[in-house]
Amino acid sequence: MAENLRQRAAKLFSGCQSAICAALEKFDGRDIFARDSWDRSDPDGSPGGGGVTCIMRNGLVFEQAGVNFSEVYGTLTQEIAARLVEEPGEVKFFAAGISLVLHPESPMIPTTHANFRYLEAGQKRWFGGGMDLTPYYLNEDDPRHFHRTIKRICDRHDTAFYPHFKKWCDEYFYLPHRQETRGVGGIFFDYLGKDNPAHLEKLFAFVSDISNSFLDCYLPIAVARRRDKYGAREKDFQLLRRGRYVEFNLLYDRGTQFGLKTGGRTESILMSLPPKVHWAYNQTFPEESLEGKLIRVLQQPREWL
Amino acid sequence: MAENLRQRAAKLFSGCQSAICAALEKFDGRDIFARDSWDRSDPDGSPGGGGVTCIMRNGLVFEQAGVNFSEVYGTLTQEIAARLVEEPGEVKFFAAGISLVLHPESPMIPTTHANFRYLEAGQKRWFGGGMDLTPYYLNEDDPRHFHRTIKRICDRHDTAFYPHFKKWCDEYFYLPHRQETRGVGGIFFDYLGKDNPAHLEKLFAFVSDISNSFLDCYLPIAVARRRDKYGAREKDFQLLRRGRYVEFNLLYDRGTQFGLKTGGRTESILMSLPPKVHWAYNQTFPEESLEGKLIRVLQQPREWL
Repeated sequence: MAENLRQRAAKLFSGCQSAICAALEKFDGRDIFARDSWDRSDPDGSPGGGGVTCIMRNGLVFEQAGVNFSEVYGTLTQEIAARLVEEPGEVKFFAAGISLVLHPESPMIPTTHANFRYLEAGQKRWFGGGMDLTPYYLNEDDPRHFHRTIKRICDRHDTAFYPHFKKWCDEYFYLPHRQETRGVGGIFFDYLGKDNPAHLEKLFAFVSDISNSFLDCYLPIAVARRRDKYGAREKDFQLLRRGRYVEFNLLYDRGTQFGLKTGGRTESILMSLPPKVHWAYNQTFPEESLEGKLIRVLQQPREWL
Repeated sequence: MAENLRQRAAKLFSGCQSAICAALEKFDGRDIFARDSWDRSDPDGSPGGGGVTCIMRNGLVFEQAGVNFSEVYGTLTQEIAARLVEEPGEVKFFAAGISLVLHPESPMIPTTHANFRYLEAGQKRWFGGGMDLTPYYLNEDDPRHFHRTIKRICDRHDTAFYPHFKKWCDEYFYLPHRQETRGVGGIFFDYLGKDNPAHLEKLFAFVSDISNSFLDCYLPIAVARRRDKYGAREKDFQLLRRGRYVEFNLLYDRGTQFGLKTGGRTESILMSLPPKVHWAYNQTFPEESLEGKLIRVLQQPREWL
């Protein structure tokens, strides 16, 4: 059994938060992150850990950027305990993680989401997480860079990781009622090490590596698209597509539902939602338009390597 | 057993749709409803009924008004059949209903939602529905008029209805993660007649009466608030509160989830979502402000008679 994973995971994710916020501030050049510390109580009133939510809402690049760190613990409700671990009686849990969502002002820069977490529930320990990209006007160089960079990091640990986690991501970030993926994917994984505690140490090394590499995966894309011109048409399409983002997060995202049901901090969980969103009844786009092209890509996940 | 309830219910709701759309067009004075007929296929490909979605998106009063009629049938999935009726094997269903959501442009006019439906599943038949009011800047005359009018109609059929359905509405339209109701309530009811087929005829009379009275409940409020002045502050608050509306509909509304899971028409189901919505991290309002006053009302459902 890996030693001190709790402390090392919390330190990893907290350090990631600081490094990512510092780099995003430098890149944005206008706004800085407001830092909001909060405490959590377990439903019975006892201390349940807490976190730090960093949020930027007036960036030059980022209309909203949220980077959340949390380290929480307590007792699982029976419903959740039954689903997560097959153990009778009271089940204690511990979770440390980082979660971020970046909503750029420009529709030419993709939205991105990343989340990495370490969990303990009863006798089980595991890692989960992933990162994914949601473009509005698709430049195919972007998913190519994103996926290649992720694959390079995965391959340093296990060459089976990338294909497995890429597929998992396409399947997870899917809106059945729209028959579309949320974006052009990335990786998603969960329950890593849950039934193989001997693997936890090497999984920690992988999660350290991939969480510390988030900026390498995303930032070059934002840099490349930063000065791309756009107008009202492109902004309208972004606002409309953000509606799909909201639909996914509220209808299907397990993390959002788990967080809200376990008494997580609502404002930190729902900072994933975009600041401005439109819905328009039955709006369609010509197949050959740039908007139609994006939608076709979302209807059929691709290999980007 | 009530005779021909399918046909009579479908005729009732379809007639309601026409009458409500005609009255709303006359009141709005600028836009008219676009009328979209659609067919539904059951998952096995056989015909599954259809509906008519009426939508107005450029009204003088209504930023978006959607009035949907549907009459659908087919075979329930096992998951839903197990929840709705305790019958083994293949369970057939039939549902006819009207559903409407009005999103006024002005934050001084409340949003409203109404839905009335007749269902058959296996051997069971029942009615469900309700209507509720979601104000942004609360004039207490509005929920008073809304609740009083509803109560008067309910009392014509059964004096136990209003208190029972008013409470059900407060409990149903509740966002636990915000500890707020969606609005100032109204009535909500479900499964009426399911275990008492002898009551279906009088329940049909009640549902006819209440669905034909929707305009009496809502329109005087819209008329009274139509010329109230507002500015950017009021509009911003409306857009933010609409975020809560989206959260309720996607996280908790059973009708939305049932519709999306049973292969309902996505665009007709999600026309309930407001056209423009904002989210803002951790935004709060002074207790004594008009915004703070609304929030306090939503935290503790009131009697409005």
